[in-house]
Amino acid sequence: MLRLIRTRLSASWWRQLWAQALATPHFRLTSPPYYITHQKGRYSSQANKESTSFVMNLFNGQFVPDNVFPFPSVLSMEQTQSLQALVDPCTRFFEEGNDPVENEKLESIETATLAGLKEMGAFGLQVPEELGGIGLTNTQYARVVEVVGVHDLGVGISLGAHQSIGFKGILLFGTQSQKEKYLPKLASGETMAAFCLTEPSSGSDAASIKTVAELSECGKFYTLNGGKIWISNGGTAEIFTVFAKTPVKEPTGEVKDKISAFIVERAFGGVTSGPPEKKMGIKCSNTAEVHFDNVKVPAENLLGELGKGFLVAVNILNNGRFGMASALSGTMRGVIVKAVDHAANRKQFGDKISNYGAIQEKIARMAMLHYVTESMAYVVSANMDMKVPDYKLEASISKIFASEAAWYVTDECIQVLGGMGYMQETGVERVLRDLRIFRIFEGTNDILRLFVALTGIEYAGVQLKNLRTTIMNPSGKTETILKDIGMRAKRKVGIPTGLSLEGIVHPGLDNSAHLVTKAIDLFGEAVESLLLKYGEKVIDEQFHLKRVADAAIDIYAMAVVISRASRSLSLGQPTAEHEKLLCQTWSHEAFERVRENLRAVKSSTWNQSFANMKLISDAVVQNQGILATHPLGF
Amino acid sequence: MLRLIRTRLSASWWRQLWAQALATPHFRLTSPPYYITHQKGRYSSQANKESTSFVMNLFNGQFVPDNVFPFPSVLSMEQTQSLQALVDPCTRFFEEGNDPVENEKLESIETATLAGLKEMGAFGLQVPEELGGIGLTNTQYARVVEVVGVHDLGVGISLGAHQSIGFKGILLFGTQSQKEKYLPKLASGETMAAFCLTEPSSGSDAASIKTVAELSECGKFYTLNGGKIWISNGGTAEIFTVFAKTPVKEPTGEVKDKISAFIVERAFGGVTSGPPEKKMGIKCSNTAEVHFDNVKVPAENLLGELGKGFLVAVNILNNGRFGMASALSGTMRGVIVKAVDHAANRKQFGDKISNYGAIQEKIARMAMLHYVTESMAYVVSANMDMKVPDYKLEASISKIFASEAAWYVTDECIQVLGGMGYMQETGVERVLRDLRIFRIFEGTNDILRLFVALTGIEYAGVQLKNLRTTIMNPSGKTETILKDIGMRAKRKVGIPTGLSLEGIVHPGLDNSAHLVTKAIDLFGEAVESLLLKYGEKVIDEQFHLKRVADAAIDIYAMAVVISRASRSLSLGQPTAEHEKLLCQTWSHEAFERVRENLRAVKSSTWNQSFANMKLISDAVVQNQGILATHPLGF
Repeated sequence: MLRLIRTRLSASWWRQLWAQALATPHFRLTSPPYYITHQKGRYSSQANKESTSFVMNLFNGQFVPDNVFPFPSVLSMEQTQSLQALVDPCTRFFEEGNDPVENEKLESIETATLAGLKEMGAFGLQVPEELGGIGLTNTQYARVVEVVGVHDLGVGISLGAHQSIGFKGILLFGTQSQKEKYLPKLASGETMAAFCLTEPSSGSDAASIKTVAELSECGKFYTLNGGKIWISNGGTAEIFTVFAKTPVKEPTGEVKDKISAFIVERAFGGVTSGPPEKKMGIKCSNTAEVHFDNVKVPAENLLGELGKGFLVAVNILNNGRFGMASALSGTMRGVIVKAVDHAANRKQFGDKISNYGAIQEKIARMAMLHYVTESMAYVVSANMDMKVPDYKLEASISKIFASEAAWYVTDECIQVLGGMGYMQETGVERVLRDLRIFRIFEGTNDILRLFVALTGIEYAGVQLKNLRTTIMNPSGKTETILKDIGMRAKRKVGIPTGLSLEGIVHPGLDNSAHLVTKAIDLFGEAVESLLLKYGEKVIDEQFHLKRVADAAIDIYAMAVVISRASRSLSLGQPTAEHEKLLCQTWSHEAFERVRENLRAVKSSTWNQSFANMKLISDAVVQNQGILATHPLGF
Repeated sequence: MLRLIRTRLSASWWRQLWAQALATPHFRLTSPPYYITHQKGRYSSQANKESTSFVMNLFNGQFVPDNVFPFPSVLSMEQTQSLQALVDPCTRFFEEGNDPVENEKLESIETATLAGLKEMGAFGLQVPEELGGIGLTNTQYARVVEVVGVHDLGVGISLGAHQSIGFKGILLFGTQSQKEKYLPKLASGETMAAFCLTEPSSGSDAASIKTVAELSECGKFYTLNGGKIWISNGGTAEIFTVFAKTPVKEPTGEVKDKISAFIVERAFGGVTSGPPEKKMGIKCSNTAEVHFDNVKVPAENLLGELGKGFLVAVNILNNGRFGMASALSGTMRGVIVKAVDHAANRKQFGDKISNYGAIQEKIARMAMLHYVTESMAYVVSANMDMKVPDYKLEASISKIFASEAAWYVTDECIQVLGGMGYMQETGVERVLRDLRIFRIFEGTNDILRLFVALTGIEYAGVQLKNLRTTIMNPSGKTETILKDIGMRAKRKVGIPTGLSLEGIVHPGLDNSAHLVTKAIDLFGEAVESLLLKYGEKVIDEQFHLKRVADAAIDIYAMAVVISRASRSLSLGQPTAEHEKLLCQTWSHEAFERVRENLRAVKSSTWNQSFANMKLISDAVVQNQGILATHPLGF
């Protein structure tokens, strides 16, 4: 009881502090000159100007440092200080006011904890202050959810489903009156929000939803019918962002069914939700079906433009992904403490197990994966705060990477803990169960990999096509053309194209810088080969696309840690040498993987294996299970 | 109710059938000549005669096919037929008489199910018939537990903790009177058994146990004191195989504390057990602490020789491992059915997802991992039935491989199922939770990897030493010496040594055979290099040892599937071409991994990375958690 009273008290204090601390302009850059000078890489001038995305330009074999080098720093001194002053009490709240074991047992967040979270403003972290929120920047939000990630992913999902996707649409696309009507109550937690996209027959293929909304003859309301599944907060929310098909008249006069987004209140009537789903983890977060049965939605509750709902959905998800990376970097941080504590104290064979190479490799790998995830999380959130126009591939990569890294780290923590790790009381198995959903929801990692590869390849294809056009119709750009052709020709025969990160990367990381440029050369060449070989049909080559995506992920991961370790070395931070080791060791392994993945894309032996795998899978599917004759014959 | 009555009836019928079916001599070979001729590989004559173990000899770069080629077949026709007649009803029992969801909820096996299992003889599968058991061979046992593995790993653990390790010591090392006294009641399930080795400070380092047993002055009993943890069936067993330190007089007269094994009854008094541990999975199996407080154990309950208890423990575990591989191959089989069913019926983007490469790669990989595991399981159980003297590395590898393959397959099944996979009702998340312990218990996979690498390297070291001695003191063996030296010299400079599997492997698998011989050459060379570089200190090079073990696992995996697919092709089995694809695709990938792992062992860049990882780990341990400065500074 005392614990909860203390929490309540600190929560009020909190809210005051935040309001005060955050009443400062955002995006003002007052960090040391090295960081605010957005140094252009010497090759960035060659890059296509359409996108400054590091990953997008990779697909052309181009190194465009703008968004990654130097390591972006977007918080003003004041923002930094105020955030810093908030992180400790936030941590204390979770340590003292939240009990993940109890939440899981209850299959909901304890009432007092929920009240504390609301009071602290945790339900409206990015809602502008004038609408009752705390008005955090993306970077500040990332740092706060990192704290949540350390302690309770179930709470994280409830909060995230509410503000990261649930009402994010209103923030991003809402009219002023929609914002004023809904955001204050959502920000205070008086009402909860949910994001309703997935349907039984429509998961990854979001465009195929069947829920419909038809405009009444009077034009005053839409009638909404359909059912959604696996909706986080589905049973507890009062406000829903719902995606439904609406008939839209094309300029040609033809009427087509297109997706639109709506703000739907449970209070409209006809909205029902199913019982809470029984899940593997994140049990304190509510997941339920939501049904819409002749729900009358006022016409003014259309969110964004009619027929542009798919764009709304994609933007919300894209905008929400960065939080996952920072939350999970927090989770890893917490898990690593447990692994390290055990390794440092457990003796076997006469020595602490932390002195054995088998354990050291695990711990080092945990630390590297955490370093990469954390770097990605804060590069992406900074990019968003910098208003970088195109960060969708980076956000996707950060989601893929973080969800897999956290899974790996937590699984390895259990292995380090041995039998202890399997016991509920240690609290690590719960984290592993919580984590399993992160590789699935908000775009499965498999779909996101295809998205990364295909978006990048499409971009490269356009560039290649442009180059061809320019070659056919030269208009004074001969020098540029020759340079580009020269670079492509060099890559083709494996000659370094001369990419260099000198002046961008700290000299102590020359070797890692060399590896990333070599990786970019290999990558550009592999993508060009694929394009020339398959053309548009590359879309069907998913075995290749997966490897291309994996290589892109690794290269981006190299870039963010090289950038971060460079900054650390330049500033002479006390942990700089440690970060150098993390960076170098990671870069070496990542480069090896990139080379293997890209070799596989081009190798005829691997192509044979891919063809075999298709045949194997087809046969097993056809047989409805294992086909090979049992060794004993039955 | 009806369900249970039916189960009971079928169980009685069962028991009768088994008794009848299994009253046949074991190990009689009546399979086609191709299998019963244990073809020697053309290089086996060069191999050290001390061990016919495939894996052990790998470490000398030798190919010794005896135990793997041709794919061993040890059941007589009658044994095969009777086993075949048992598998269907056993499956039916688990389908109709066992409810894994209910068992998990109860945190124990339903009473009626337990009774059915006992009635069916499931508690004494390998106990000789004259002692009330069913007298299965290892291969037959493997096939039965495979069925258990498909349906309920929690039940599998309860049964396995009882007979695979709990009373296995009595079967292997018991005197006639010990067997007669204990086995009948254990076989009928009237009493349950547990294996008591692990202690709070003694997990992987089994030799460091602190439980003590002191002989009374009268010499009639031992007084047992100590505590054991994480004992499967610890709370439910009446009979315990307990390991304790006993003072033993050495031939020198010196008294040393050595481990001895004892059969301890709960009825002796002073035996208490703790409450059931709350675990991540296998919840219906009981896990508890067991305490021995001045327990008077009659002297005749010493199991095996005084002071030889470590050997007893190692032998029990070694002997029990084969069952895990077959059980888990069953688990995979069941899980794959669910994945394939979903993939074949789920449509997204206008097509069944089984038609997408991203899903096909997953399903193909599941099928390959299952094929390897199943092959290993039945090669090892057959080797045991063939009375192969040395199969410890193969048994360890099968445990490592099976536990990791089942984990991977089940995790990927969840990914294929998407959101559905995360829901309890689908039943796959339960399997994943159950599986997590298999990589930890009965020798963690990390320790077993070191065991495989070190045992093999030690063997190779002895061979190398012998070679040196022979060179120094030649005694007419000049030709042998020159051959051996020649082979080693060739490997050193990367010239193929002429290893060939012609006549052993079906010609359709020439390519895979070529890869496995190449892998063996590389492996032998890498081990020799390590030995020459580090000598006995190789024991401290765990980064290297892990890679050596991984390569050994992959090579053994290649060998067993090449052998199995060879048999299938030779027999013209209907699934032969499918198995050929599984074998070729697997062999290609496995070979690539072997090459990479062995390259890492010798590469100076990798050695640098290993050194870095040690430093990274030390720093993180020192700092009690992540050390790198946060990107925001706090």
